[in-house]
Amino acid sequence: MSRVRVLSFGVSLDGFGAGPDQSLENPLGVNGPEIMEWFLNTDVWRRMHGLGSGETGTDNEIAKRGFDRIGAWILGRNMFGPVRGPWPDESWRGWWGEEPPYHVPTFVLTNHERAPLVMAGGTTFYFVTDGIESALAQARKAAGDRDIRVGGGVSTVRQFLQARLIDEMHLAVRPLLMGSGENLWEGLDLRALGYECAERIAGERAMHVFIRKRG
Amino acid sequence: MSRVRVLSFGVSLDGFGAGPDQSLENPLGVNGPEIMEWFLNTDVWRRMHGLGSGETGTDNEIAKRGFDRIGAWILGRNMFGPVRGPWPDESWRGWWGEEPPYHVPTFVLTNHERAPLVMAGGTTFYFVTDGIESALAQARKAAGDRDIRVGGGVSTVRQFLQARLIDEMHLAVRPLLMGSGENLWEGLDLRALGYECAERIAGERAMHVFIRKRG
Repeated sequence: MSRVRVLSFGVSLDGFGAGPDQSLENPLGVNGPEIMEWFLNTDVWRRMHGLGSGETGTDNEIAKRGFDRIGAWILGRNMFGPVRGPWPDESWRGWWGEEPPYHVPTFVLTNHERAPLVMAGGTTFYFVTDGIESALAQARKAAGDRDIRVGGGVSTVRQFLQARLIDEMHLAVRPLLMGSGENLWEGLDLRALGYECAERIAGERAMHVFIRKRG
Repeated sequence: MSRVRVLSFGVSLDGFGAGPDQSLENPLGVNGPEIMEWFLNTDVWRRMHGLGSGETGTDNEIAKRGFDRIGAWILGRNMFGPVRGPWPDESWRGWWGEEPPYHVPTFVLTNHERAPLVMAGGTTFYFVTDGIESALAQARKAAGDRDIRVGGGVSTVRQFLQARLIDEMHLAVRPLLMGSGENLWEGLDLRALGYECAERIAGERAMHVFIRKRG
């Protein structure tokens, strides 16, 4: 059955999924890349971006799994780009160049309408203006029996968790202190919402924790 | 040189050091013992409390280190007992019976004066009413060249961190969701305060992270 999953989602020890002051220059916020360092060094990520080979090992194995069986992605608008407010034009085509790493229909949450954007390699960005439930319905249809991956950012993941729409969440907890930025946990009582930790695996640069919705 | 240390301090994945609604029946709050489960099963803890042998391994080794070279403890009042407000009498003598596990001078933060309490096995509880700096000065004097261990609870540890008085902090991060209770991280920017993660070790029931103040 198709599941709704958050995968390879990096958080600092103190609970931040991104640093403060996200911008064009700092898409992950100031110091934010430290959170993703476990991922940016993996073989799977480096090859995907034509950067040659990378580290193999536990982190890489787990990062690889994050791309298995995914039939659609859902992204918050900030994950798609730094543009805020109405789209001034169609020139912004995502952070990833002409061939984004999704390769499936990808639904971008926004308050501002925009025509679908067909990219190289199978990714089409669809802009969804009527909320997370609608984005999920569209993603389910696109994914068929494959899974839906909610990519982030923090605010999008929090909205889906609060609505109990996530079935599984893999966090890569990085042993670092971010101090400020986008907090995943704040005011979110995942225990009361019916979630629990199912498994953990120590990786080279992160502690991987697998959270699931109780049946 | 004598250091000020937080050791074997358990936190849930979502940052809680105790559960909600602490009371005489639930000294660690509702569900709070789940946070300390890594510790309560160790050989060092079980022997210390006359419960026979316990688990040996990484968690036990790290728990054991937490008692090395400690010359004084500092505890928040809730760690000493459930009594709130002025002491009604002297009948409450701590959570631990007549021989507490400290065996050194132990300074209890409170707003209400009380005479020192000499217990079996070397523990004397001193009640400090003039704040954390004073407690630390008294603890330093008592500890000599040994270390001072700030035992908790969460609020006490947060006050010491905010004042940059902690040199080292060992957290045992438990892979569980507490959801609510006493949050260690909330509003505390440890990065800005000059702290960093120095090391991590995967234990059987917890992920151990060692935080230190940058020099």
